[in-house]
Amino acid sequence: MARWQPDARGRLEAAALELFETGGYDGTTAAQIAAHADLTERTFFRHFADKREVLFANQSGLDETLAGAVRAAPPGMTPAEAIGVGLRAAGERLQPRRDVLVRRAAIIATHPELQERELGKLAAYSATLADALRERGVPAGVAEVAGVAAIATFRVAFERWTAGDRPFPDVAAEALADLGATFGAVGREGAPGD
Amino acid sequence: MARWQPDARGRLEAAALELFETGGYDGTTAAQIAAHADLTERTFFRHFADKREVLFANQSGLDETLAGAVRAAPPGMTPAEAIGVGLRAAGERLQPRRDVLVRRAAIIATHPELQERELGKLAAYSATLADALRERGVPAGVAEVAGVAAIATFRVAFERWTAGDRPFPDVAAEALADLGATFGAVGREGAPGD
Repeated sequence: MARWQPDARGRLEAAALELFETGGYDGTTAAQIAAHADLTERTFFRHFADKREVLFANQSGLDETLAGAVRAAPPGMTPAEAIGVGLRAAGERLQPRRDVLVRRAAIIATHPELQERELGKLAAYSATLADALRERGVPAGVAEVAGVAAIATFRVAFERWTAGDRPFPDVAAEALADLGATFGAVGREGAPGD
Repeated sequence: MARWQPDARGRLEAAALELFETGGYDGTTAAQIAAHADLTERTFFRHFADKREVLFANQSGLDETLAGAVRAAPPGMTPAEAIGVGLRAAGERLQPRRDVLVRRAAIIATHPELQERELGKLAAYSATLADALRERGVPAGVAEVAGVAAIATFRVAFERWTAGDRPFPDVAAEALADLGATFGAVGREGAPGD
């Protein structure tokens, strides 16, 4: 019954994943998560607004890692190259949490409400990334489109990374190359079929 | 008291928009929407699962318009050009409903839950679009990335279209060109900074 509770947040996350996996997301309450982590419900709510946020709050800061790396990328880099640097930085941050993130992804995949929440979080990342691109001198309109497309690509890379066994930088680079191969010719004047 | 009710669905949608605008989304019930449209609650639930779906159900089919146009685009077109054709087809379908869609966008903007639902719908469009690209011979992995990036771009174009007074094809073409300008160089071997 130690009163000092190291890493309450991490313990609550671990307990939530276990209970969501065994009893289902819908059947699990915040009180059960707290009890499973040997903490009080009050402690739970000091860390998380509700049981859903246990899955999302620990992701916070990832957008700043990504945007910070984009800002700090060498000035000579193109926007796409800077985005590549940002995705690698995000990947380095994600790597140590891979096992937890694979389990988290499996839980989110079972609930449309959780998937929508995940998409909402990622949409916010797009705006943060667009800000970083603007700071690099990218025009606002271009930065907005680049931000949403880059985060959509990040989402695909993230899904491939949790579903397979390849390192995040590899899947991210491949996805960015696919993006370039598909849309690289759009800027040209006149389509072949015209 | 005519028993024949033409376009109950359209009347329910119009009534919902009015009530969401005047009384707020949270403060409006399905029963109030039905009454405002001079219809029964039973009729409401024959058309929509809940009040939220009044904002989303009428969008259904847009993904098929987009994907159908991509499938039917001339075989010689690049994937990006076919996507451009798809976005124009979606725009033609959206144009007559512009006034309703502007009002709808304003309501959705006030509620994170509605924004997340919108993102979930659009994520499903990505999969439909990726299927259409695969049918054109685009490799599955590339089609997935192209699908999510194209729908992210569509979302930006849609927001610019409802916020301004430019025709949808113009904003869509501009957004696709921004995408190409940003990511077109990614496929190259070796970055300038290497």
